[in-house]
Amino acid sequence: MSSFSISQIASALAAQAVGAVDLRVTGASEPASAGPDHLALAMDPKYGDGLTAGQAQAAILWDGADWQALGLKAAIFVPRPRYAMAGLTTLMDAGPQIAAGVHPTAVVDPSAQIDEGAAIGPFVVIGADVRIGPKARIASHVSIDTGAQIGSQALLLQGAKIGARVVLGDRVILQPGACIGSDGFSFVTPEKSGVENVRATLGDQQDAAKQSWTRIHSLGSVHIGDDVEVGANAAIDRGTIRNTTIGRGTKLDNLVHIGHNVQVGEDCLLCGQVGIAGSSTIGNRVVMGGQCGVNDNIFVGDDVIAGGATKIFTNAPAGRVLLGYPAMKMDAHVEAYKGLRRLPRLFRDVAALKKAVSNSDQSD
Amino acid sequence: MSSFSISQIASALAAQAVGAVDLRVTGASEPASAGPDHLALAMDPKYGDGLTAGQAQAAILWDGADWQALGLKAAIFVPRPRYAMAGLTTLMDAGPQIAAGVHPTAVVDPSAQIDEGAAIGPFVVIGADVRIGPKARIASHVSIDTGAQIGSQALLLQGAKIGARVVLGDRVILQPGACIGSDGFSFVTPEKSGVENVRATLGDQQDAAKQSWTRIHSLGSVHIGDDVEVGANAAIDRGTIRNTTIGRGTKLDNLVHIGHNVQVGEDCLLCGQVGIAGSSTIGNRVVMGGQCGVNDNIFVGDDVIAGGATKIFTNAPAGRVLLGYPAMKMDAHVEAYKGLRRLPRLFRDVAALKKAVSNSDQSD
Amino acid sequence: MSSFSISQIASALAAQAVGAVDLRVTGASEPASAGPDHLALAMDPKYGDGLTAGQAQAAILWDGADWQALGLKAAIFVPRPRYAMAGLTTLMDAGPQIAAGVHPTAVVDPSAQIDEGAAIGPFVVIGADVRIGPKARIASHVSIDTGAQIGSQALLLQGAKIGARVVLGDRVILQPGACIGSDGFSFVTPEKSGVENVRATLGDQQDAAKQSWTRIHSLGSVHIGDDVEVGANAAIDRGTIRNTTIGRGTKLDNLVHIGHNVQVGEDCLLCGQVGIAGSSTIGNRVVMGGQCGVNDNIFVGDDVIAGGATKIFTNAPAGRVLLGYPAMKMDAHVEAYKGLRRLPRLFRDVAALKKAVSNSDQSD
Repeated sequence: MSSFSISQIASALAAQAVGAVDLRVTGASEPASAGPDHLALAMDPKYGDGLTAGQAQAAILWDGADWQALGLKAAIFVPRPRYAMAGLTTLMDAGPQIAAGVHPTAVVDPSAQIDEGAAIGPFVVIGADVRIGPKARIASHVSIDTGAQIGSQALLLQGAKIGARVVLGDRVILQPGACIGSDGFSFVTPEKSGVENVRATLGDQQDAAKQSWTRIHSLGSVHIGDDVEVGANAAIDRGTIRNTTIGRGTKLDNLVHIGHNVQVGEDCLLCGQVGIAGSSTIGNRVVMGGQCGVNDNIFVGDDVIAGGATKIFTNAPAGRVLLGYPAMKMDAHVEAYKGLRRLPRLFRDVAALKKAVSNSDQSD
Repeated sequence: MSSFSISQIASALAAQAVGAVDLRVTGASEPASAGPDHLALAMDPKYGDGLTAGQAQAAILWDGADWQALGLKAAIFVPRPRYAMAGLTTLMDAGPQIAAGVHPTAVVDPSAQIDEGAAIGPFVVIGADVRIGPKARIASHVSIDTGAQIGSQALLLQGAKIGARVVLGDRVILQPGACIGSDGFSFVTPEKSGVENVRATLGDQQDAAKQSWTRIHSLGSVHIGDDVEVGANAAIDRGTIRNTTIGRGTKLDNLVHIGHNVQVGEDCLLCGQVGIAGSSTIGNRVVMGGQCGVNDNIFVGDDVIAGGATKIFTNAPAGRVLLGYPAMKMDAHVEAYKGLRRLPRLFRDVAALKKAVSNSDQSD
Repeated sequence: MSSFSISQIASALAAQAVGAVDLRVTGASEPASAGPDHLALAMDPKYGDGLTAGQAQAAILWDGADWQALGLKAAIFVPRPRYAMAGLTTLMDAGPQIAAGVHPTAVVDPSAQIDEGAAIGPFVVIGADVRIGPKARIASHVSIDTGAQIGSQALLLQGAKIGARVVLGDRVILQPGACIGSDGFSFVTPEKSGVENVRATLGDQQDAAKQSWTRIHSLGSVHIGDDVEVGANAAIDRGTIRNTTIGRGTKLDNLVHIGHNVQVGEDCLLCGQVGIAGSSTIGNRVVMGGQCGVNDNIFVGDDVIAGGATKIFTNAPAGRVLLGYPAMKMDAHVEAYKGLRRLPRLFRDVAALKKAVSNSDQSD
């Protein structure tokens, strides 16, 4: 088991260490459940009691904590605790263990170019003309179809599926089961359909013929920028003619659905089960809570933030903070729904008013 | 790289070609990014500038466009542009490349009957008594359990999972990771549960006992008609006694969930992340936008159209156009939500009225 | 094909059998489609006509049914029909057929400990230090990463993915494609982000800097209790420091998403596409309909029941029955939404009142 000295950890966090900085720990723990070899994470005074209950000899502490009074031998102080978690967990994460080289069970097309430093696990399938960059790690049961390109240090976890001609940037992470490059969901009827009429009239199907759906195939692919992460069992469709794109630094959570032709900007966070319908454009630094939905063929501007399960039906200007179904500005939503809860009382008030006014009229 | 003549494309689209119809193109592009070997897709006058900016020598054009003035050598005119996309992309899609025959790594039960023309990829597992039809194509890591039947020309993409006794019709397409025939989510408590009481009373749990759940196993399977498509990482549960069924021509998008015993009709479109709870019946030609939900044990009539994220709790008559949570007629929903946004003002108005009437009463 | 005598079935259900109890059946059917070898399921008088139409000679009947008048040779009477379905389907389900022992194509690390009675299918990958309990059954394409523990009689279906150090209890069932132990979705910016500001102010981003996201790695794992079931293509993230936990007897449906650090109690039912955001706590016996969502860092008390697509943003006390977005008590929701539908009329009423009061004022 690997271990880390307090000074080594402090250095990784660009933080200040005090006390017995040569003390070594093997992992991190919540204060109350920490063993003697653990670094306790106590960045808030509320963890003080936990520290006493647990066995940690070293901790990351809140600003101003009296580490000696807390019975510790060493401590680290950090200015922004949540950011320190990034440095600490990166240091301590051993990561998935995929042996270097190509596992003998992998099926690799002879035309594929695999960098010598890449690690390819059991039962991986790599198609013709695929290119895999330096230090890429590919876990078991991954499939990479014809002509796809995988960037350097990419990490493709178990059972991820990469379609033909998909491009993944450097350091891209695909969680298990993620599917990049499924066909777009694009179908058309020979004549105008009821859906087309409803969209035009906002509610009227008119007398559309009864028809079957004909498939529009996806000739485009998916391009994913550097430092993107895609969650478990998420799915990103290829474009019809152009590529579906995900910008550098954007993170998609589990079970997220990205439709065909969608363009997602840089540094976005799309949380669990978010869905973006076909041909919509999402700006940079957009954050969407879990289960948000975006209509097709609209745009969501830079820096939009949408609370959980917000359903965005129309274009959203840059910087807007949204909530609700349909999406409203967050503060307007809070007001409107306060009103909704009080509606039964309002109906009673109005009924009483009608009666009062009617009586008043009759008494005139 | 394959190429196509303008006359060949026009013929595939049953459309009219003009100019140098023997010119050959290797792919389709948006006008502005088209190279000299591309067919530009410019079915709307708004693409006129793009044509000038790009290098295409041939294009599909909007009705009435002056192809020569646009600097083209050849052009195709189509009456319904979106429908033309179906023909064009079908012609140009080379499709997944799965070598004919059975890959040597596949594990195939000796009792399985595989048509000679079928293509079976690496690491595919085919169970006892499975039957696979002519020209079916099965990509890597697919599993097909005991007694399942796969129709002719079916296309099962990477990692799709087909359960025991599932029947897939001809030309069915399963996107990567689709799961057909998972067990139904059906559990029961020995005595009446709080959920049963809430359903009966619309809100009151009464004093239900604290109990664990006992599993109802799924003895039925899933039957899927011809020309059905199922999206990436979607899941369709088997029925309890009868089969869950998906009718001919219906298309399910990524991450769609179909519960046990559900009957979906023909020619439906269920967009990304739609969920249909157990034992509900969906009619023919029903269209649901992304993230719609349907309650269990209800029916949704033929030709119902539901906007994005509509939650259908009660039976929906044929032809109804729905929106909202809970679902309302689309036009009523639009009106109601206009009101919701204006609620804070309404409360102020009513407060003012109360004051006015009260003053008026006092002044009487 | 296996068959069952009527007395054997009645005994399994702890129920009463009458008539020719030695009659044997090979399966169960709905009454109208039953063949002569089927047990018809007719627990409600509405199935009387179906019995006559079908060919069943034996049936499970509603209380008080006259089995002889219905033309049956044998019948079983059960006090709680739905509960009887559990016993019947358990008896009749042959279950997936996975040959005992380790399939020759499986890749098993020499340090893994696999009980002799376990069944391991084709193309399974088992990592270092994994422990697999007695009679566990593991279907094709499953991957089990370093140090994971699988309980006795667990059933892991096709393509399930188990991450490092995950613990699965006895009799756990994973449906195909379920992913246990994906990395948590946890990212942080160097300085305060717009999202942090919006949370603090309920709507105002303030002037947050434009920043990229830094990853917080997941050092914890996932612990799943006995008798838990996880649906097809569902995903459960590992914890950051502590483990994500799912309590004994809880059932998760298809495409459910459980974020990092989440603690789900015992005997819960979370239906299709439910999502629980990071660090929230769900009590015991909680039931959530399909597509419910739970905000991060909140708690949902014991015995809460939430109707379909309820979005829970704030702590929910034990025993609460919820519905809506945002969640309200179910009865309050029903009242509020009745009001919402009648809002256009209320606006007209208030406009008329304003006019009446204004006229009355002017006429004073």
